Amino acid sequence: MEFLNAITAQEALEQIRSFPLHQSRSSAIETGKALGRVLAADVKAAENIPPFSRSLVDGYAVVAKDTYGAKETSPAFLSLIGQVAVGEDATLSLHEGQTIYLATGAMIPAGTEAVVMQEYTRVTSDAVEVTKALRKGENIVFAGEDIQRETVVLTKGTRLGPFDLGVLSALGVTKVEVFDKPRVGLISSGNEIVDIETASPPPGTVRDINRYAITGLLEQTGCDVTFLGIARDTLDDISEKLKKAEEFDLILVSGGSSKGQADFITDCIERLGGKILFHGINIRPGKPTIFGSLWSKPIFGLPGHPVSCSMVVIRFVAQLVKDMAGQRAEITPPLRGVLSTNVPSSYGVEEYVRVRVENSDQGLAVSPLFGKSSVVSSLSKAHGYVVVAEGREGLEQGEWLEVNLFG
Amino acid sequence: MEFLNAITAQEALEQIRSFPLHQSRSSAIETGKALGRVLAADVKAAENIPPFSRSLVDGYAVVAKDTYGAKETSPAFLSLIGQVAVGEDATLSLHEGQTIYLATGAMIPAGTEAVVMQEYTRVTSDAVEVTKALRKGENIVFAGEDIQRETVVLTKGTRLGPFDLGVLSALGVTKVEVFDKPRVGLISSGNEIVDIETASPPPGTVRDINRYAITGLLEQTGCDVTFLGIARDTLDDISEKLKKAEEFDLILVSGGSSKGQADFITDCIERLGGKILFHGINIRPGKPTIFGSLWSKPIFGLPGHPVSCSMVVIRFVAQLVKDMAGQRAEITPPLRGVLSTNVPSSYGVEEYVRVRVENSDQGLAVSPLFGKSSVVSSLSKAHGYVVVAEGREGLEQGEWLEVNLFG
Repeated sequence: MEFLNAITAQEALEQIRSFPLHQSRSSAIETGKALGRVLAADVKAAENIPPFSRSLVDGYAVVAKDTYGAKETSPAFLSLIGQVAVGEDATLSLHEGQTIYLATGAMIPAGTEAVVMQEYTRVTSDAVEVTKALRKGENIVFAGEDIQRETVVLTKGTRLGPFDLGVLSALGVTKVEVFDKPRVGLISSGNEIVDIETASPPPGTVRDINRYAITGLLEQTGCDVTFLGIARDTLDDISEKLKKAEEFDLILVSGGSSKGQADFITDCIERLGGKILFHGINIRPGKPTIFGSLWSKPIFGLPGHPVSCSMVVIRFVAQLVKDMAGQRAEITPPLRGVLSTNVPSSYGVEEYVRVRVENSDQGLAVSPLFGKSSVVSSLSKAHGYVVVAEGREGLEQGEWLEVNLFG
Repeated sequence: MEFLNAITAQEALEQIRSFPLHQSRSSAIETGKALGRVLAADVKAAENIPPFSRSLVDGYAVVAKDTYGAKETSPAFLSLIGQVAVGEDATLSLHEGQTIYLATGAMIPAGTEAVVMQEYTRVTSDAVEVTKALRKGENIVFAGEDIQRETVVLTKGTRLGPFDLGVLSALGVTKVEVFDKPRVGLISSGNEIVDIETASPPPGTVRDINRYAITGLLEQTGCDVTFLGIARDTLDDISEKLKKAEEFDLILVSGGSSKGQADFITDCIERLGGKILFHGINIRPGKPTIFGSLWSKPIFGLPGHPVSCSMVVIRFVAQLVKDMAGQRAEITPPLRGVLSTNVPSSYGVEEYVRVRVENSDQGLAVSPLFGKSSVVSSLSKAHGYVVVAEGREGLEQGEWLEVNLFG
């Protein structure tokens, strides 16, 4: 297979991410089911949170200046005029010289400037003695201090985590508008590929390793993946399976590591009116990757070797899928470690090396797992991978480098 | 509230993790649905993977010594006796002086010692010229090289990722034995708590922030969480809700940050025949945490403040849940960053400080988000947290420290 037109990883990513995507659809779903979904619109607070000022402690409401100079040996004496229980409306008002008992979370009565913790008080028959001076605002969380009415609390493109659901709950937002999950149509191809269910694959054939690995990787990224079957290496069978993919947002064809197989896939895409945008990326593993357009949808022809296939999904397909899902780029703090051994590589190729990591006194120790790109067990054993840049001919033992963890 | 018996975070974790758990149940499920589930038994390979030796390239099968000394200017001449297509049984045998065309992935014919890539050959009318010397084994992946029959490929306690599903697919394992997800019964409590759906909470009341946050955190850890309702602060109502929790593996009661509320929960647990194992951990936030045993199940009383509640779930409850789920401890490579500002803390208390992180030239910049423990928006804004150890009175600007990311 000649890749006269093989492009760099950077060029490939730019072409992939500049593919003209359809406007993402969105739907309103219940907040309780929105974990991991991507917001399709900003969420603005319709209320203050908390809606009223609350006590942060079990204690006594005070006017701050009543406590100035108060200490263990010369307490302030205040007159107890009542209490506010948790969940109750505070109907009393506080004036100088007075105090009101408040449980943690109770509404702050009008006139209150601070709450003194019970530990710093003594209750006598006719007074509450306060043994500590209080600053204004002490032990109170004010109305709107958590979330101010009319502010945007969550922005479009946020992938909702548990605490975001907490924020939505606080505001009484029971339904949220989220982008629909990108729908991916997945086809396995190759005369050598048989169903996972096959008890004894005939000589020369192997089970479909990539199907579940790709599905799992893309489900973690927030897609719905539909498996459309295994295509034989014929124009007719690949075309038939591709036609079933027309309704999907993204089409993936795994398999086709040999020249003949790849040719079938590019021919089929073109025969159905699609266009090949590139064929071949200067990466290892994963070089024979195909990217094109079919029915105005992006389509990938992925290499058949499991490691190649998975690395292309992680480095390239997942990026496109996040764009399609409307997901804002996340913070991905760089994880750095020190390489335990030399790693050879070729100049002009971006290489992905599977690694295991281990905590050590010197920091994170990174050990490469060498192995052929057809060896799936090396992925399962790896914690992640490191990248050898195009311009380098390998990595050196003792070098500090960035580690990308799987999952 | 007095915590005369408050214990250290380490002691709490030890007590929690030494709680006598019931034998985890397990079930066989379809491999395609097993992403994120925990293996209940080792998986042993019943076959070699690949099941037969395969070509890694498009090229020609050779006996290695036929190519010794071959180069561009003096190629080896071999006689082409046939080809093996992908997916086909290799019925031919190779002998010295001969070659067979093999596509990538094709079965290796008997007698083959290496495969020369097509790029290093020239095909003439009566011969294939090989322009490169080959080592034995070059461009072949041997039967069993990926996975050797009878070896354990995945061990009990593994949380299955996409590549593990690939390994299972390769082996034709269509069903796997996984531990049942721990079932968590969740009760919210407090007179001030109203349903998330409440359009206008009455004065003094707030919506149930913790329910979805706890549910989300525990679902990410691999649990099924069932919400059992909001209990009023009465012995009867809390008891009634607790009785509904009897069938669950773990019981959580959120709320109860005031002394009165906490007392109701401890009283109820004891009244139903349960036992309080500890009440109070020297942590901030999260001190008023209750842990006990009810119907031989572990039960937590979680603080009501959202930040306190979530931090206790992350640091303590999640650990127990992973044990219950049968999950082996994962590699958690330490993520380190440099603190952007001083953080005060108290000696004798393990403190959790929410932080945002940002990449900078000096490494990961870590900025604390100060905020009261009742402020849920600070969690939503945070990327993670740092721990101030009990024995320290704060952290210093410029200090390198470990960062724990959320999610």
